[in-house]
Amino acid sequence: MSHKYVYLFSEGDGSMRELLGGKGANLAEMTKLGMPVPQGFTVTTEACTRYYEDGKVIAQEIQDQIYEYLAKIEEINGKKFGDPEKPLLVSVRSGARASMPGMMDTILNLGINDEVAEGLIKGNPDPSFARFVYDSYRRFIQMFSDVVMEVPKHNFEVIIDELKAKKGVKDDIELDVEDMKELVRLFKAYYKEQKGEDFPSDPRAQLMAAVQAVFRSWDNPRANVYRRMNDIPYSWGTAVNVQPMVFGNLNTNSGTGVAFSRDPATGENVLFGEYLINAQGEDVVAGIRTPSHISKLKEEMPEVYEQFVTIAKKLENHYKDMQDMEFTIENGKLYMLQTRNGKRTATAALKIAVDLVDEGLIDEETAVLRVDPKQLDALLHPQFDAAALKAAKVIGTGLAASPGAATGKVVFTADRAKELAEKGEKVILVRLETSPEDIEGMAAAQGILTVRGGMTSHAAVVARGMGTCCVSGCGEIKMHAEEGYFELGGKKYYEGDYISLDGSTGKIYDGEIKTVEASISGDFGRFMAWADKYRTLKVRTNADTPTDAATAVHFGAEGIGLCRTEHMFFEGDRIKAIREMIVSKTAEARAKALEKILPLQQKDFEEMYRVLEGRPMTIRFLDPPLHEFLPQKENEIKELADDLGISVDELKAVIDSLHEANPMMGHRGCRLAVTYPEIARMQTTAVISAAINVNKEHPEYNIVPEIMIPLVGEVKELKFVKDVVVETADKLIAEAGVKLEYMVGTMIEIPRAALTADEIAKEAEFFSFGTNDLTQMTFGFSRDDAGKFLDAYYDTKIYEFDPFAKLDQTGVGKLVEMAVNLGKATRPDIKLGICGEHGGDPSSVEFCHNVGLDYVSCSPYRVPLARLAAAQAAIKAKKA
Amino acid sequence: MSHKYVYLFSEGDGSMRELLGGKGANLAEMTKLGMPVPQGFTVTTEACTRYYEDGKVIAQEIQDQIYEYLAKIEEINGKKFGDPEKPLLVSVRSGARASMPGMMDTILNLGINDEVAEGLIKGNPDPSFARFVYDSYRRFIQMFSDVVMEVPKHNFEVIIDELKAKKGVKDDIELDVEDMKELVRLFKAYYKEQKGEDFPSDPRAQLMAAVQAVFRSWDNPRANVYRRMNDIPYSWGTAVNVQPMVFGNLNTNSGTGVAFSRDPATGENVLFGEYLINAQGEDVVAGIRTPSHISKLKEEMPEVYEQFVTIAKKLENHYKDMQDMEFTIENGKLYMLQTRNGKRTATAALKIAVDLVDEGLIDEETAVLRVDPKQLDALLHPQFDAAALKAAKVIGTGLAASPGAATGKVVFTADRAKELAEKGEKVILVRLETSPEDIEGMAAAQGILTVRGGMTSHAAVVARGMGTCCVSGCGEIKMHAEEGYFELGGKKYYEGDYISLDGSTGKIYDGEIKTVEASISGDFGRFMAWADKYRTLKVRTNADTPTDAATAVHFGAEGIGLCRTEHMFFEGDRIKAIREMIVSKTAEARAKALEKILPLQQKDFEEMYRVLEGRPMTIRFLDPPLHEFLPQKENEIKELADDLGISVDELKAVIDSLHEANPMMGHRGCRLAVTYPEIARMQTTAVISAAINVNKEHPEYNIVPEIMIPLVGEVKELKFVKDVVVETADKLIAEAGVKLEYMVGTMIEIPRAALTADEIAKEAEFFSFGTNDLTQMTFGFSRDDAGKFLDAYYDTKIYEFDPFAKLDQTGVGKLVEMAVNLGKATRPDIKLGICGEHGGDPSSVEFCHNVGLDYVSCSPYRVPLARLAAAQAAIKAKKA
Repeated sequence: MSHKYVYLFSEGDGSMRELLGGKGANLAEMTKLGMPVPQGFTVTTEACTRYYEDGKVIAQEIQDQIYEYLAKIEEINGKKFGDPEKPLLVSVRSGARASMPGMMDTILNLGINDEVAEGLIKGNPDPSFARFVYDSYRRFIQMFSDVVMEVPKHNFEVIIDELKAKKGVKDDIELDVEDMKELVRLFKAYYKEQKGEDFPSDPRAQLMAAVQAVFRSWDNPRANVYRRMNDIPYSWGTAVNVQPMVFGNLNTNSGTGVAFSRDPATGENVLFGEYLINAQGEDVVAGIRTPSHISKLKEEMPEVYEQFVTIAKKLENHYKDMQDMEFTIENGKLYMLQTRNGKRTATAALKIAVDLVDEGLIDEETAVLRVDPKQLDALLHPQFDAAALKAAKVIGTGLAASPGAATGKVVFTADRAKELAEKGEKVILVRLETSPEDIEGMAAAQGILTVRGGMTSHAAVVARGMGTCCVSGCGEIKMHAEEGYFELGGKKYYEGDYISLDGSTGKIYDGEIKTVEASISGDFGRFMAWADKYRTLKVRTNADTPTDAATAVHFGAEGIGLCRTEHMFFEGDRIKAIREMIVSKTAEARAKALEKILPLQQKDFEEMYRVLEGRPMTIRFLDPPLHEFLPQKENEIKELADDLGISVDELKAVIDSLHEANPMMGHRGCRLAVTYPEIARMQTTAVISAAINVNKEHPEYNIVPEIMIPLVGEVKELKFVKDVVVETADKLIAEAGVKLEYMVGTMIEIPRAALTADEIAKEAEFFSFGTNDLTQMTFGFSRDDAGKFLDAYYDTKIYEFDPFAKLDQTGVGKLVEMAVNLGKATRPDIKLGICGEHGGDPSSVEFCHNVGLDYVSCSPYRVPLARLAAAQAAIKAKKA
Repeated sequence: MSHKYVYLFSEGDGSMRELLGGKGANLAEMTKLGMPVPQGFTVTTEACTRYYEDGKVIAQEIQDQIYEYLAKIEEINGKKFGDPEKPLLVSVRSGARASMPGMMDTILNLGINDEVAEGLIKGNPDPSFARFVYDSYRRFIQMFSDVVMEVPKHNFEVIIDELKAKKGVKDDIELDVEDMKELVRLFKAYYKEQKGEDFPSDPRAQLMAAVQAVFRSWDNPRANVYRRMNDIPYSWGTAVNVQPMVFGNLNTNSGTGVAFSRDPATGENVLFGEYLINAQGEDVVAGIRTPSHISKLKEEMPEVYEQFVTIAKKLENHYKDMQDMEFTIENGKLYMLQTRNGKRTATAALKIAVDLVDEGLIDEETAVLRVDPKQLDALLHPQFDAAALKAAKVIGTGLAASPGAATGKVVFTADRAKELAEKGEKVILVRLETSPEDIEGMAAAQGILTVRGGMTSHAAVVARGMGTCCVSGCGEIKMHAEEGYFELGGKKYYEGDYISLDGSTGKIYDGEIKTVEASISGDFGRFMAWADKYRTLKVRTNADTPTDAATAVHFGAEGIGLCRTEHMFFEGDRIKAIREMIVSKTAEARAKALEKILPLQQKDFEEMYRVLEGRPMTIRFLDPPLHEFLPQKENEIKELADDLGISVDELKAVIDSLHEANPMMGHRGCRLAVTYPEIARMQTTAVISAAINVNKEHPEYNIVPEIMIPLVGEVKELKFVKDVVVETADKLIAEAGVKLEYMVGTMIEIPRAALTADEIAKEAEFFSFGTNDLTQMTFGFSRDDAGKFLDAYYDTKIYEFDPFAKLDQTGVGKLVEMAVNLGKATRPDIKLGICGEHGGDPSSVEFCHNVGLDYVSCSPYRVPLARLAAAQAAIKAKKA
């Protein structure tokens, strides 16, 4: 027996989403519940997958099954495809596993031709019905030509306009039945002219072409982009639903509408939606007529309304979630065409989840699973005013690097950003790319826009940490910073011109747009408490300053998983001392420069420890290559040389000697501590002294410093640096005459560290997976350069997601899992965490839970997201 | 019972090398064979390891055992330590598992003090004996102070010189017994002045300090360097041999000597060596007196000579290898102090191995194991004339990047190298670093010297491929190329000045040194035939030109494992076409530029196929980032812009747009083919057309092209490029109407490729491990930058070898093994090879054999080495 590729609605149910797609499964479920659904069939997602495997051909056995099921629905509906007496017209709609609204194609009124049209009219002498039939017919030609045969819809609109001009009328409704007939004739002629063949009049041929078009639409560019944004695998494919048409545009006793069982904007428990009398679905979308609020249906068709309310409640109770439903009324009879869990705003999502628990419909665990962690971002950042946004003009798109909305005046330098911000101006800092020196300007800006750099570029990472809106890597920008402007969307923007950024979508807008502040509703606290109750994974934050640490603690961080000490080195006088250290020629001179940094660094740590009030903090020792601390520009070099009392040539020689072909793989991380152990010694002194001091002030904090050595690839390397740390720390502790425990651990961010984690765990008391670098090394591409080819990789579907945003579980994840197992084999109680950007991505958090990490660490504004994702992972794992 | 740390010679045997060290095991073996060996004891290598584990302290239990065994040898020898009546004097010598000649410390005459000296003299009234005793005493003070207490030996020589001046004599022998006594007094006074305490007169204290000094010498800098050069692990430690002294300097009926059972220079089967009458070992080394050839002993002491000849033959037959022996004659009695397998030249190694087989002493397999593969290099490259080298002055040292000796005039540019070479001059090209544009100049030079770059830098790789001597990464050089000179060893070298390079040692010499050409003896062919008989691993070569390919075939290469197509792009007009392609703005313009390259590339492949005469060739598609093809210098940019008919600004914009932060991890490898499939299409056309053409000329070649896609990290990426290749190839084959098989495979050089090799093997018909890049990514450091910190890593013993020269089996090897297993699981007949530089390193070749690769591929001049290493790996595996 051949494989079953087609199912009647009555053969399926709601659990068969993978095979039948969401729409198909729900149509089957509604059928099972006895609801009024026009009975059709679903061609499975497997048929779609097979279509692509077979080289974009629908196999004969699938075609045979489609015709077989067509015969079945003809019998069920008492109509016949292509039969002028009792013609069956159908809709052909896509329906993937996950809802992808508007991304794929739909064809209505399929099965019509000249004979069928005349046959339909014969059965109903009303002249308005004849107009309706020919209107449907011309719409079908238009839709079919566009969707199936790639003759643009717009070209048909031109023909309509020409006819209206000829007749001297303005609106489509002024065209009569004869005009519609004429349009059908003109459309078919135009089709023939374009395609060199007659418009297909055989309904069976129409059907197969339409099924194929839906399959094909799975691979259209907007679907591909949507999938990448929503983590939907290309391999899933789409199902196709073939359903007898019901006509909301049959007469004034007919209509069509869309409704939600609760308000999708606020979550309020009221029926929400709109409908149009005497219309098809398209008309609602087209916006020519204004739909009525669903409550008005109670007056117009009280029985239908009651029936619909009952069905809506029943569906909500059945699915135990807010439903988004489509319905059509044909001549006073209600038909359900679709139901699905409705999309909702973050606020609504929280309210509905909490309300459903209070109503006893779902339990807390289910409620926790109901909110997409990514939605929480919207609650924590300002957003554009929805009305203002409608009028705004998009001038370009970059990467959605750090969420939130920002509006302000263009500035090109960090200094200028700071200056204007101090005067109370709102500014957007626009840069080719940012560097650590820009940090104060970045903090002063409302938003940051960069030409280069990906999701983990300096700008992106720092902005997310600050909670500042950032759009990065907008390569369309032509930068002329020296001439004082940039070009985008065909316009030049000078300093002081307004632009607006949406860091959640990556869109860049011309001019000023009103923003609304973030507001955290009462439901938030209750909901997050449930999440915390069910999660086992701890959530820490990546923070380098007391301010960031305080923000993160406010958002529920349980400690700091990554404190990057180098970020502390760029402020004020410190950079000078660091530079003095770098140009030092002897260990003694270096030690002398380091002595100047010590008290500043120690003070930083003391402040951090005070903010954390006893929460743990993992401090990573100096990581970046030293050349990052030196200036590149001629005048800055001269200034620094004068400052340091050396010649420009001498300083240039130092800069040259620090130049690296591949700095990412260069002299950085623990390699600095191996060559300059005095740096590790100074940093250890700062950490341990800070802990001793703050423990003295607050014995209840009981601080246990966690010192993390970065970029380790070999256990002996770790041991070398650890020996320096332990020697220094033990001496300080002994001198202070106190008891102080501390831990020394390492980042796992070099493939070799993961491969030899059993060895490394002999020295490391904890591992923190640095998945940014681990991803770079494992894939062999640098995040700074990957932009040049990643687009080609997305276009060709070699990659379906950005491995810097979402952890690559196949490759990088394999290394992580290997390291977890090897590490635990050596040291069963080893503490395991992740501090890469992936710590704030829900699917990656789930992975971390599943491989047995103890905590994830992410930027402060992602802490709630990670808490929720961790809870969902725990609940899913328990249920599985 | 406590662990046994000390063994009498009579308690051990030759198999206990790991525990007793080579010297100790052989002394035990000679004892077992009944040979005249002064009976002493060995402190084990475990005691040394423990010494380091305990923080450089000799544990009490080890000290106790040493004294216990001292008592035993006192009894055996009938003498007593520190006893003036019958004093026992001992030598204390190091002896590691592997011979490390001269690297560690030795102390003779230990056990002497004032009383012992007087006691000795009492027993022998001869006044020359008294002089001998005090001479031995002062030597001991000198040696002990130097080795154990770090008071430099030289300072004592100054005291001797002062005494001689005062006495008005010239030679040491003119000093009489009273002078020697005076020296002992002066030495002890000087020691006290230096160390603030009396010279230790307690023999037991002397002994323990000497043992500790030997342990300590395991960690001295020259031992560390020697170990790194010879792959001896630091963890092995050294044993210490304590042996009663016998005195070759007792009288004229005494003497000392060193002899080899065969000639270590030629391998000839004659006793070879020298001796001195009335002397200690030191005197032979000091070179004040000229030793006699061993054959003269036959006349001077016929009985002793006969006894020695018998022992030498017996030892050679016993060890079945040429022996290097030390002996002493005390008052007419022969004592054996050491035997070991003798070091020998490459020529001798081959001859001895072949002769021993002919003599029936060893079988072919054993013979194959007897020659160090690395020695073969010396047979294939010119060497310095030994006599001329003695007079030469070393001015610096770099990395021994490509073996051989070269002498010539300094030039600073590739053009100048070519120019002078065409005039018949011998030149050494001296560069900061080389780039592909230098290729012709490199080929014209006798040797290449670079300031930057490691063992796998461009200069090193290309030089090895050409068989040209190269010393790379000599950071001591101060380069002033624009002023026309460089500084090294305190001297300025201008164009035209002579320098000499030894690419086998990394040494750089001042001036011209005579070289002798390589010569391959008749034994070579016979020996290599045995190697080929026993190996199972195939050996291919990395070659990009017909010349290199021919050289490699001459050296026994069985095909090409890596043909880097980009190297073909730098010659003459091609670079212009490539540049035209790079600046193209559309796929069409690119295709047009590629059309110009096609016939040239096809011709290259045709020539290669002709040279190979049917041997397989793996062709790697374009790999380097495109910016490598563009000029960097202002004038060259201008020239190129004119050439291409675009503005300088336009060209600069292209160069800027190709700039990468980390080019090693940038837009290269198959990423080029994904973004520009037309490049892969052109290269496929060239390969397939070449194969078709040459197959037509020579049907017997039956060429099966092997196309290799580089830098793959994801199977879909490989599939994308493979689809382009297959489509193009199949079309060409069909058009030609021929039958042609071809293979498409990939490099495994990105960690993710190794981790997902099961997936990748679905598309790849072969894997070639690119262990250069795989090492970079796995360790997370770039070979271009690692030089900045690797020295610190060697000094701290974090790394004991260069992972770019010798495959890191712990980390990188784990990935290789994983990929082999995953690949075979998917495709059991997958062909596996390695084409990184490691293919020419013996220990790495052994690894490749053991993990089940089918072949290794290395530079042409390393092919014999790889053949031998592969044979040794097979034989070792069989024996294990």
